[in-house]
Amino acid sequence: MVIAYRDAVEADLPAIVALLADDELGAEREDVAAPLVASYVDAFHAIAATHHLRLIVAVDGERIVGTMQFLLIPGLSSRGSWHGQIEAVRIAADLRGQGQGEAFVRWAIEQCRLAGCASVQLVSHESRRAAHRFWRKLGFVPSHVGFKLHL
Amino acid sequence: MVIAYRDAVEADLPAIVALLADDELGAEREDVAAPLVASYVDAFHAIAATHHLRLIVAVDGERIVGTMQFLLIPGLSSRGSWHGQIEAVRIAADLRGQGQGEAFVRWAIEQCRLAGCASVQLVSHESRRAAHRFWRKLGFVPSHVGFKLHL
Repeated sequence: MVIAYRDAVEADLPAIVALLADDELGAEREDVAAPLVASYVDAFHAIAATHHLRLIVAVDGERIVGTMQFLLIPGLSSRGSWHGQIEAVRIAADLRGQGQGEAFVRWAIEQCRLAGCASVQLVSHESRRAAHRFWRKLGFVPSHVGFKLHL
Repeated sequence: MVIAYRDAVEADLPAIVALLADDELGAEREDVAAPLVASYVDAFHAIAATHHLRLIVAVDGERIVGTMQFLLIPGLSSRGSWHGQIEAVRIAADLRGQGQGEAFVRWAIEQCRLAGCASVQLVSHESRRAAHRFWRKLGFVPSHVGFKLHL
């Protein structure tokens, strides 16, 4: 199996949403009904129109087997450093535990490095213990508390 | 005292960097020497050129008394929701503990709400216990673990 990574196109949306929904937290908050609700399509176009923000798919031939979103954020802190941020990483259920997620994230880290980022950050819900082990294994340090306010 | 909030301009940079440096973690990683190192100026221009990213100052007349960066991030998760993200919030030392930080953050939350965000998120270093109480008081829930990888 040769997995490739590329920017998502609109036709990939149903497969991406299906990956987001195939998750213990995602199952409650996503809607995989066809045709997709318009808010997914709107969000896709908003992402495509936003600087430094990329929606990526991992593909095995024609099949979409993974997705993630990552962005590069310039900031004044740390003498004007850029930071990478990884969000919404998913790998197809039948491919989990085979190193595909690790390879996918290592690719994203390399994109951040090539773009000159000083660090890469992400947040993971406190209940995702297996994910926390995954991030630690990749060298990420759980140095911060992630706060959310629902509006 | 009437504090106003506005987008930062390049002439504000020395005052903003001084605020970032007047902090237990910031003291080690910022450089307030005049003239400012070019990386701060480069970062200012990168921020100004980035969609949905704003560097804000709180001003009391001519004096800059606070700063924060916030961005609005579109995403596919949660049916294509937007999320606000707050970073690098600082209030001048002599004005801390007087409700100015709370008012500043409430203003930012309102900007996120007006922009249609489903939530606002931030990360805070695990050592910042007083800051954690501040965020909880504003309704933020410490539901996530924040991971960082330095490159």
